[in-house]
Amino acid sequence: MNAVVLASGGLDSTVAAAMARRDGYALYLLTIEYGQRHHVEIQKARAIAAWLAAVEHKILRLDLDTFGGSALVGSEDVPKNRSDRERQSGIPSTYVPARNTVFLSLALAYAEVVDASCIVIGANVLDYSGYPDCRPEFLRAFEQVARLGTKKGTHGDTIQIKAPLLPLSKTRIIQQGLALGVPFELTHSCYDPREDGSACRQCDSCLIRLKGFQDAGLRDPAPYAARVSSIQDR
Amino acid sequence: MNAVVLASGGLDSTVAAAMARRDGYALYLLTIEYGQRHHVEIQKARAIAAWLAAVEHKILRLDLDTFGGSALVGSEDVPKNRSDRERQSGIPSTYVPARNTVFLSLALAYAEVVDASCIVIGANVLDYSGYPDCRPEFLRAFEQVARLGTKKGTHGDTIQIKAPLLPLSKTRIIQQGLALGVPFELTHSCYDPREDGSACRQCDSCLIRLKGFQDAGLRDPAPYAARVSSIQDR
Repeated sequence: MNAVVLASGGLDSTVAAAMARRDGYALYLLTIEYGQRHHVEIQKARAIAAWLAAVEHKILRLDLDTFGGSALVGSEDVPKNRSDRERQSGIPSTYVPARNTVFLSLALAYAEVVDASCIVIGANVLDYSGYPDCRPEFLRAFEQVARLGTKKGTHGDTIQIKAPLLPLSKTRIIQQGLALGVPFELTHSCYDPREDGSACRQCDSCLIRLKGFQDAGLRDPAPYAARVSSIQDR
Repeated sequence: MNAVVLASGGLDSTVAAAMARRDGYALYLLTIEYGQRHHVEIQKARAIAAWLAAVEHKILRLDLDTFGGSALVGSEDVPKNRSDRERQSGIPSTYVPARNTVFLSLALAYAEVVDASCIVIGANVLDYSGYPDCRPEFLRAFEQVARLGTKKGTHGDTIQIKAPLLPLSKTRIIQQGLALGVPFELTHSCYDPREDGSACRQCDSCLIRLKGFQDAGLRDPAPYAARVSSIQDR
């Protein structure tokens, strides 16, 4: 049984990949490079692929910034230090237009070539309620597209879309990863990392991750940028 | 009203774009470069965009050959001089895995950014019955994905997928293009063009196009490679 895993190098997709490996799938990892990526992040993504004993790891460059429309791929600033309430009010500026549709379609092309029976995506609803393309009904609709739009589908085979983290809190995801021995220090979540790969600790993604580790009673081993001391701190 | 048009530079997508312009849409053309493309073809695609008076023309490079699996993007030979019966028996080797799913998803990302109410694709069922991702049920399924997976969709707006050529024969498409003044000499259909941009006249796409012009009682003004004279011809 082959699985294509959308592997961003982040915590969620790494835990999802580890779960698929535990379930007996041979893993074909697909990392899609869009927006800014630092060299150190790519190195870590490769180290994660090695840890997962993936059969193959493809890195595909995609210039989504051609279209613009997101703080994650354009020149807009990534919002920092937002409260839970701010984060949960509507679709954030870090939303990349149709991102999961684009990523799943590329994974589908790969799945056809390597004859995979499923695509694994680390999508999650609780922490990112603002993203429309993380909803279960969206994933079911994409499964129909996969069935109708592929050679495999016309032969009666289906390609399942698995999102095993969909209903889990960040804390539960971390506990799941811990149980599977995921090397958290290699995973990367920050929307606005420094050149040395360290995380900003202020974007939505860092805030959610740090809170998740805190609530799990753990220390996040990933590298973070030093806290900037303000005049008041001195 | 804005429309994103998947514009390959081919005859079908150019006629579909001309129909959308006639219907009053402001056109945002998206050309996806995958596999081999010659410089002269890109120049022609730009000339077509100018003729269509497109608001914008984006060219996005996508390395689908990363995955392999098709004669159109890999090193496999493009089949030549096949009969109608050979062409209609099953999925051809020129099928690119999940191609229309990938192309529509990229068009969807663009459509979100430019606030387009529809995506136009030159898909056609009659001549290419072997491609699963040209079927109407596939296109309807993708419309659901567009509705559920976008910011626009969550606000109650839909993004329609328009495939105005779906039920038309190549001859009817050519007649439609003729009525709209489409500059056929700029359009390009060959799967295996020469470096000067001339068409091979032997691949499935050339054979279907040439027969379409013949049945319409017209001469195709596009450049074709010289016919190789065999010993018997002398």
